[in-house]
Order: sequence, then structure tokens, then C-alpha cells
Amino acid sequence: MPQNIYDNPKFFAGYDRLRAENAGMNEALEQPALKSLLPDPADLAGMRVLDIGCGAGEMCRWLADRGAGSVVGMDISEWMLQKAAASSHSPVTYIHIPAEDASFEPASFDLIVSSLTLHYVEDISPLFRNIHTWLSGGGRFVFSMEHPVTTAVQGRIEPRWLEDGTGRRVAWKLGHNSDEGERVSAWFVDGVIKYHRTVATVLNTLIDSGFRIARVLEPHAVEEAERARPELLEERMRPPFLFVAAEASA
Amino acid sequence: MPQNIYDNPKFFAGYDRLRAENAGMNEALEQPALKSLLPDPADLAGMRVLDIGCGAGEMCRWLADRGAGSVVGMDISEWMLQKAAASSHSPVTYIHIPAEDASFEPASFDLIVSSLTLHYVEDISPLFRNIHTWLSGGGRFVFSMEHPVTTAVQGRIEPRWLEDGTGRRVAWKLGHNSDEGERVSAWFVDGVIKYHRTVATVLNTLIDSGFRIARVLEPHAVEEAERARPELLEERMRPPFLFVAAEASA
Repeated sequence: MPQNIYDNPKFFAGYDRLRAENAGMNEALEQPALKSLLPDPADLAGMRVLDIGCGAGEMCRWLADRGAGSVVGMDISEWMLQKAAASSHSPVTYIHIPAEDASFEPASFDLIVSSLTLHYVEDISPLFRNIHTWLSGGGRFVFSMEHPVTTAVQGRIEPRWLEDGTGRRVAWKLGHNSDEGERVSAWFVDGVIKYHRTVATVLNTLIDSGFRIARVLEPHAVEEAERARPELLEERMRPPFLFVAAEASA
Repeated sequence: MPQNIYDNPKFFAGYDRLRAENAGMNEALEQPALKSLLPDPADLAGMRVLDIGCGAGEMCRWLADRGAGSVVGMDISEWMLQKAAASSHSPVTYIHIPAEDASFEPASFDLIVSSLTLHYVEDISPLFRNIHTWLSGGGRFVFSMEHPVTTAVQGRIEPRWLEDGTGRRVAWKLGHNSDEGERVSAWFVDGVIKYHRTVATVLNTLIDSGFRIARVLEPHAVEEAERARPELLEERMRPPFLFVAAEASA
């Protein structure tokens, strides 16, 4: 049974505050990069879209506003979906189900997106094969996940940043990269479970599932955000997230 | 003018000793991984092969022994090529030229390999486009290079390993990953110039040059070598090399 950490009260409150305060990297880095891989409005028009791990539905609403024909958001967290439903929005539908348990007819979607969800999935191989089946030929799968250089050390090397004598961060401590599998760490609460796999494994699993790699991104924060919050310059030391756009064979 | 560090006497002597003593990672990690991406002898039979940065010609001879129809080895280093010529081997031809200056007719090769050379090339974009042109449709480009997590810090963060109080290596210090470009460091001699780019840039440059990514590897040493030399287990902390197999559009 996949872990549903988002419905832990303490986690939910902490995460909700993080997002609300815009203190996270979502707006400064993750969302701009992910959106850069999505179709232009002209191409998005009428598309059938699935959002895996939709959380409170921000991306679903954004896609609908940009002209998507239909958007299905699915998430493991009932609380997140309740937030999503509170700003309900045609043509978005929400489904409460873990990604691993979902089932759709072949060629149900033209675009499948997933934002910062796949590092919670223990085995991406069956899910990637399903996603390939759910996409129509030539359809696109676009996702972000915690970058392997960050999941590698999660719960294994603490603190993860190396600081100089003045407390300034000077390097990221990388280790355990070859050792794929479960990582247990504390993030708002103890015992948050994520799964580490190398960049190579992520890409090869896509290829073996029938995808063609179209784009890979390892960006730092957008420069406007870096100017406003210079601490974001630290993200240039190592990529916090990995982004991939992949195309299903037509 | 590309740097030809291999024809520096001190570098050449140091590198030659490294290879001769089998103290490097070539036999324990780099060669097995690179060879795993090459065609089987049945498919290699009769193939026209180019080796970019062939050094002393080990890979050229290996390919010829496995049935390649013709092998062209090219290298910037005249001394390396003199070593290569000393064990001359039909059907191998050596050319003394930097990869950046080479020119072949379109569709001259069925397979192009490059072992630990591309991190010396300042701009891989024109070279990748050339390689795509030199390959016949459906041809394969297989290469290894220093992994971006290692080139990122070259000459920027020293020492690159973090050690505990007992001198044991506990993590690799990653930094400067977003800052692509020249890296000057000491390796047998001072002033060895390499070029850092992210994994994303390497893959996207391939895609933009018309290649389809077929395989990506970030391996640690083969287990037999790890058992014989336990210090090789350190390579599991971070990938020392990046390997890619890419296919030219048919």
C-alpha cells in the first residue's frame, strides 16, 4: 500500500504552510520548468490531460485555463483533493486513488503530467508502462521529481549541505547514489518514505516502456526569484529536481 | 585550438603508468560499461567504425578483433597514435586530428565510439551534429565521458571527497553544477582543461542533433573488481562516468 503522508495532520499543516508562504521552490523553479515542457495553448486546446499526484489541483486548473479539453486530477491524498474540490473548475475531474492503482482505457489521454510525485512511487516500471498505454500515439508524458542527487542521500547523510566555518553552504554531500531503493527521512514529520533511483534508471525505464526522451532539464531557480531571494543561488550547486518530457511512440 | 595535454611529457608518462598498472578505473568500470553498449559480434561484422579519441588504439583493436569491417581511430595526440601504430592491426587506420577538426563524407560510418574524450571538447554541439551526419541512418553513437558530478567541481572544490575524522571518504562534494564551461585542474600536470556541462545538456544536445537516446548508464565498478580492490566501492557514492548510446534517425 503506497504511503499517504499528505493526510498526516502535522505533515499536511506544514506542507500547506510551505506552499502558502511561497517559501518553497515550486514557484521559483519547479513550476516554471515543468510548464516550459508543456504544449503551447494552441496545441493544448481540446487535449485530454491526466495529472498524476495533482495535490490541491493548481496544475489542473492552470491546464483547464489554458484550453485543455478535459483534465483528470488524481491523488492519494483525500485532504488535498478536498482542497482541490473547494475551487472546483470545469472541465476538471478529481479521482482519489494512488497512481499505482489507477486504471484507464488505452489511449485515454493526449498529455500526462506529474509534478513531484514519482519519488513516492516504489516501482516506476509498471506505472510508466501504464502511462504509455493510457497515452494516445504521439502523446506526451511530462514530469518532475526530486533529483537523484537529492534522494540518494535522503536519511543517509545529515546534514546534506557542507558548510564552511561561517555557516555558509559550500557543497552538497553526495553519496549512496548506486544504492537504489527506499529512503526514510524527516520532512515536517518523521518517517516520510521516498524512493531513490539514478537518472540512468529513470531514463532507461522510460525507454523500456516505449517512450522517446524529448527533453531533460536540471534547472536552477529563475533569475527573478534568485534576485529577490539570493539563498536560491544555492540551488546552482546541485539540481534539486529532474524534469523529463517523453513522447509515446506514435 | 583544442588542448593536447597527452603530448605533454610529464602527463604522458603519468597517464601511461596509470594505464599500465591497471590502477585506473578503465578496466574495472569504464571499459565493461562502454562495451556493454556496443553491438554483438554478429551485428558488428563488417561495420564501418570510427573511434573518436582512440588514444593508443586498444578499443580499435578490440573492435577489429570482434569483426568490424573497418576501424578509423582518430586522436589529437601524436604520441598516443605512435603507441597505437606500434601494434598496428588490419583493418585499423589512425588519423592524427582533433575531433573538432575532423571531416568525413555523410554516412561514412555505422558505429561511432568515444571513450573518455568528450569532456575535453569545448563545444559538443557542432561535433554531435557532425557525428550524426557521419553516421548512416540507424547508426549508433556510443560514448563515455567524465560524469557531470565530477567535472562540476574540477578545480573548484578541493579536495573533492569529504572525509571523516579517520580519513575515510564519506561523501562527494558536489557544487557549481549549473555553471557550465571550462574547468582547469591538476592531473599529473597543472593546467589540464576540461569542460563541464550538465547531464541534461549532454542529452538535449544529442536530441537536438537528431539522435534518439537508447541507453544511459551511471555504473559503479564491476563486482569482481570491487572484491579485489574494496576502495572501488567508493565509486558507488557518485557516478564517475556517464555513458550514452544514441541512435541516428534512420
